[in-house]
Amino acid sequence: MVYAATATAPVNIACIKYWGKRDTKLILPTNSSLSVTLDQDHLRSTTTSRADESFEKGDRLWLNGKEEVVKPDGRLGVCITELRNWRSIEEEKDSSLPKLSQWPLRIASYNNFPTAAGLASSASGLAALVASLARLYQLPQTPSQLSLIARQGSGSACRSLFGGFVAWREGVKSDGSDSLAEEVAPQSHWPDMHAVICVVSDAKKGTSSTSGMQRTVETSTLLQERLRIVPGRMEAISTAIKEKNFEEFASITMKDSNSFHSVCLDTSPPIFYLNDVSKSIIAVIEELNRSSGKIIAAYTFDAGPNAVIYALKENIPKVLGAINRFFPTSEEPRDPFGIAAQDLPEGFDLKVVREGGWEKGAVKTLIHTRVGDGPRTLSKEESLLNDKGEPKVLAKA
Amino acid sequence: MVYAATATAPVNIACIKYWGKRDTKLILPTNSSLSVTLDQDHLRSTTTSRADESFEKGDRLWLNGKEEVVKPDGRLGVCITELRNWRSIEEEKDSSLPKLSQWPLRIASYNNFPTAAGLASSASGLAALVASLARLYQLPQTPSQLSLIARQGSGSACRSLFGGFVAWREGVKSDGSDSLAEEVAPQSHWPDMHAVICVVSDAKKGTSSTSGMQRTVETSTLLQERLRIVPGRMEAISTAIKEKNFEEFASITMKDSNSFHSVCLDTSPPIFYLNDVSKSIIAVIEELNRSSGKIIAAYTFDAGPNAVIYALKENIPKVLGAINRFFPTSEEPRDPFGIAAQDLPEGFDLKVVREGGWEKGAVKTLIHTRVGDGPRTLSKEESLLNDKGEPKVLAKA
Repeated sequence: MVYAATATAPVNIACIKYWGKRDTKLILPTNSSLSVTLDQDHLRSTTTSRADESFEKGDRLWLNGKEEVVKPDGRLGVCITELRNWRSIEEEKDSSLPKLSQWPLRIASYNNFPTAAGLASSASGLAALVASLARLYQLPQTPSQLSLIARQGSGSACRSLFGGFVAWREGVKSDGSDSLAEEVAPQSHWPDMHAVICVVSDAKKGTSSTSGMQRTVETSTLLQERLRIVPGRMEAISTAIKEKNFEEFASITMKDSNSFHSVCLDTSPPIFYLNDVSKSIIAVIEELNRSSGKIIAAYTFDAGPNAVIYALKENIPKVLGAINRFFPTSEEPRDPFGIAAQDLPEGFDLKVVREGGWEKGAVKTLIHTRVGDGPRTLSKEESLLNDKGEPKVLAKA
Repeated sequence: MVYAATATAPVNIACIKYWGKRDTKLILPTNSSLSVTLDQDHLRSTTTSRADESFEKGDRLWLNGKEEVVKPDGRLGVCITELRNWRSIEEEKDSSLPKLSQWPLRIASYNNFPTAAGLASSASGLAALVASLARLYQLPQTPSQLSLIARQGSGSACRSLFGGFVAWREGVKSDGSDSLAEEVAPQSHWPDMHAVICVVSDAKKGTSSTSGMQRTVETSTLLQERLRIVPGRMEAISTAIKEKNFEEFASITMKDSNSFHSVCLDTSPPIFYLNDVSKSIIAVIEELNRSSGKIIAAYTFDAGPNAVIYALKENIPKVLGAINRFFPTSEEPRDPFGIAAQDLPEGFDLKVVREGGWEKGAVKTLIHTRVGDGPRTLSKEESLLNDKGEPKVLAKA
């Protein structure tokens, strides 16, 4: 009997940003956050977990075909230990269960998008790990309960355990037991929510979010004010989502992205994630909204220069048109939904972008996707591990 | 008898930034600010004012040789009217005085630095206008009283009526009568305070400060917190100046610049003045300080991409060395103080700037100057007006 499970988990992109921990060990945030889960048909992490009595002692894990050391007190190790503990509780309750909790694990995880794309792969990766182990161990916990574990692997990973629109409640307890993710609305509530990711070239690797956010907590004079503002935004954007009020959703999303980057800049030394291309994308979207007479698109930026532009499906042609016009990509765009770009609105002021737009490749590639569902379980045939419990595909040395 | 006066006034660069008006007509700020006056030997505006009964009716004014219309309710018009009123008060007190207040004016003003340099020429220009008219009218008012007038011409112009280190007190009165500039310390107190201005190329003209700051007042959620922080910074930097504590002076200067640009970014739509070159200059100065083991230089940025780097004279070689290393200027640098650049400190991490530094001309030119004195009166020989009351030099059409 082979005990294995394969799961996929989605990427999520926050509209209300997580920036700052009140507990760095348990990963408890200084504020609640809210994200849109993106479609796994386009972007996903896949993880296979297998437990076997016959494996050599000790857990082993491969990320994108490259073995990683699992430190017991590291973030991956903590997640595995917690899920194993939950399994052992089940085994104690029901002695007929195989003692999977005592067996060595073999885990392989793979992202279908290059790490170089600068998309947060740790969120989908940790969520896929938790989802596959929860499945392997047949755990009875709800996704919100599982999110407590994923959170400790990588904060925003907790939000990737749900589809649709997801809140991570900051919680008040010091043990973190109420700092969990929950669904605000499912994918099916607002399926027309689309997203265009602009992958922006950057010459220099920026400050890691882990170290950056703690520097902000320690030195920013404006962060406390941001923390007072966020609860109102959480309320307002949740209402906007429930009412499918795109203009309100977009307005809050843009404001909160700018507020997050403001407190980064207010850090000592300052942290910059937006570069001149990012700023130009902002100018184009602001002008697209202005010249359209209403807000039809919202930009948001995580800890890097890539833009994610949210827009309803009906307005995607305009978004693609505006982006293509000023940021010609090096790759020929192939839209997965077969949507064609549309000309700029009349009255669009071309002068918002530097003369002639940007050189080819300033935006490397566009990824057009949409709101998606939560983790999925795959069949045995899709396992990333071979019969011996080794990855089917190893990274090239 | 010719009644004329020529005065020069300096540029000032704020360490605590002015951003936001509580009264846009009177130009009353939302917070106090503090600046260093720069040496007029390097950067100055010069203004000649002449009153003559025989001139054709109506005031005329030329800026850099180009005639400007003086609207009575415009900023220039308001300054001229107020100073004229003060003159007429003197004329009423002493009937032997010529009735200059009733005579038409001819005014010529000239900046010795190109407007394209992106240095705030309105501050020095308005201060020179006020200084020359006050001289022409033989006004008894103090520089602080004159600063009330200059403030209405261009807010930060009020600080250019003093040398050294200058505070603009926000005031509390609704008529603005206590929103004035005063000296914190004279030039002679800390003459080793030097400044290196990095003139940064920018493809695109940014948001004007007049419209930008009001957008911040109307839309930023973080500005109110900044306003609560500034008074403490004003206190602390004044103490640092009095004690000649450069590290403290520099630390506050950098924090306040970043705080100002943070609230710009937190504006809807966001305002960006720093470009990728500006950010690179910040990274170089932060690394120069880190690798020097103490803060030896402070960057600050106004409403544009140009950096002003404050440093004590003894550390200017290191500042020039670091800037020259990564930002080769298109012009051969000629230091007015004969100071040579010095190599980077050991342990300076070259990776803070993109590989190989920036292309020639990303920083167009460096202007090395230092703290300077307040407005000066020039001799008749240096008048900008000819015998007929017309500019000696007209701008090319």
